[in-house]
Amino acid sequence: MPELRRDPILGRWIIIATERSKRPTDFVIDRVSTREGFCPLCPGHENTTPPEVLSYGRAVPAPNKPGWNLRVVPNKFPALIIEGEIGKEGDGIYDKMNGIGAHEVIVEIPEHDLSFAQLPVERMVQVFWAYRDRIIDLGRDPRFKYVMVFKNYGHAAGASLEHSHSQLVALPILPRMIVSELEGSKRYYGYKERCIFCDIIRQERKQQVRIVADNDDFIAITPFAPRSPFEMWIMPTVHGSSYIDMAEPQFKSLAAIFSDCMRRLDACIQDVPYNFVLHTAPLRENPLEHFHWHFEIMPKLTQIAGFEWGSGFYINPMPPEEAASFLRDAEI
Amino acid sequence: MPELRRDPILGRWIIIATERSKRPTDFVIDRVSTREGFCPLCPGHENTTPPEVLSYGRAVPAPNKPGWNLRVVPNKFPALIIEGEIGKEGDGIYDKMNGIGAHEVIVEIPEHDLSFAQLPVERMVQVFWAYRDRIIDLGRDPRFKYVMVFKNYGHAAGASLEHSHSQLVALPILPRMIVSELEGSKRYYGYKERCIFCDIIRQERKQQVRIVADNDDFIAITPFAPRSPFEMWIMPTVHGSSYIDMAEPQFKSLAAIFSDCMRRLDACIQDVPYNFVLHTAPLRENPLEHFHWHFEIMPKLTQIAGFEWGSGFYINPMPPEEAASFLRDAEI
Repeated sequence: MPELRRDPILGRWIIIATERSKRPTDFVIDRVSTREGFCPLCPGHENTTPPEVLSYGRAVPAPNKPGWNLRVVPNKFPALIIEGEIGKEGDGIYDKMNGIGAHEVIVEIPEHDLSFAQLPVERMVQVFWAYRDRIIDLGRDPRFKYVMVFKNYGHAAGASLEHSHSQLVALPILPRMIVSELEGSKRYYGYKERCIFCDIIRQERKQQVRIVADNDDFIAITPFAPRSPFEMWIMPTVHGSSYIDMAEPQFKSLAAIFSDCMRRLDACIQDVPYNFVLHTAPLRENPLEHFHWHFEIMPKLTQIAGFEWGSGFYINPMPPEEAASFLRDAEI
Repeated sequence: MPELRRDPILGRWIIIATERSKRPTDFVIDRVSTREGFCPLCPGHENTTPPEVLSYGRAVPAPNKPGWNLRVVPNKFPALIIEGEIGKEGDGIYDKMNGIGAHEVIVEIPEHDLSFAQLPVERMVQVFWAYRDRIIDLGRDPRFKYVMVFKNYGHAAGASLEHSHSQLVALPILPRMIVSELEGSKRYYGYKERCIFCDIIRQERKQQVRIVADNDDFIAITPFAPRSPFEMWIMPTVHGSSYIDMAEPQFKSLAAIFSDCMRRLDACIQDVPYNFVLHTAPLRENPLEHFHWHFEIMPKLTQIAGFEWGSGFYINPMPPEEAASFLRDAEI
């Protein structure tokens, strides 16, 4: 059974996922393996994944058979497991709990050789729709407090499979990233009675130096204090704290701006590894005035990311104003 | 002039270091370059670095000539620059200041082909002594609040030079990592009136499952909630908040346990890239009852570190109890 453990000094929770690896040498193998050849996410190989929990696109229901456009399956090597009780427990000054949660893989497309950046907008819409469907479904389980949706693209960004996919982890605790954002934005709201993200959007529109793209419902910017070159945030322009409250027409706008940004990034640094993470309100939370859901896209340029990872202290050689300019000027 | 910028939501400061890189293609080149061949840190090449600020080992003074055992030089591509005023400034909701600071390289040894893990203990002592000398010297500059000492080893951990070296950055602000630790440990002290790190040492000695090594003055453990497999913390067993207050005989103990840990790590995963970071009290701070200086060593196993870097949420496939057991059993 995996375990959730809390750092007693920082309050940061981490997952000890024992099913994933065992011996020191496993890490060595992991590092060099390219994992080419057989793809468990390709059509025809449905029986090599755990049974699907969602699929789109089949004309007639035929679970775990080909014919799908998008498919969500439990991760075969989950960081958390779905069955069991939370079981919080102290161990002297330490705190831990059972690693209860869900860990799912969103297989975004049947085609093996198409990347997320290359997806037509209407197909990308389905991916964002699947995130919503899964968050709503998992939000019915009272054990879970948060669903973290993310994508690893490229080996250096942690992807172990080439086939285009994203992941989600349903958690019985709030991750530190979201706790910090909730606290920070609440502090600002207490002082100003305005959402800090709405204020950021206002200032960015006025200054016009960090905007990458803009449409009716969304804005994409390079943030003022980015951790990495070409970091981008995509935010709804109308205030909303939860991704799942987004209205249907907005999904197309989101996919349009996301596709635009990913193609611009790819045009600047071809095939750059990246991570993106959805930042949204905790599950079953009432609408929050101070918090604003958004996506953060972090290109992974490993040489400059080593030390920062360990220290939380970032050195970024690319001013976001220049990054935005390169991204805007990119030919796509 | 580089710039320090504050994320308005999280309060995290980052450095925009414009001298370091310019165009998107620079990142691509950076990623593939192995930088072999000429080594600017080798003896005989002293004129290719900025003039040294400290050296050990020359029989007669001969700055910037061969004959040294250890040498500290300003970074040729500094993230921060030493001359100028702090110049804090608002920009709407954003905060920034001039990128004033020091960025230095500790060239640990003259030999190009020796790694830190391979250093004899008495030579490692010099490295730790140099950290102290530089922190004391930079601490005299009232513009600086913190000196962050760290080492990147291996390409994946951010090292761009092979020759064994560490770095330091003197900062006009406190990095978030240290702010969070100061806050967390102060909260615990307010509740218990005991140092949380001292309590951790007490519990680890009692439980005997996460100790990697132990000597008269130091203990090395795999922390209860580690971010990465084989993460290790090295802590003085007698309470102290500042590295520079360490007494001379302790330097040998520190080098002995550090060398022991690095050789054990290397025996488990040969030549694994890693970062280590010194965590110590802010400059010119009175001794703190609640904070305890220490080193954190983070092996960099890239495939599992991609997403975590972007989200602050860590999945670790190796329980620290098992890691400690592998490290203890390693043949060194």
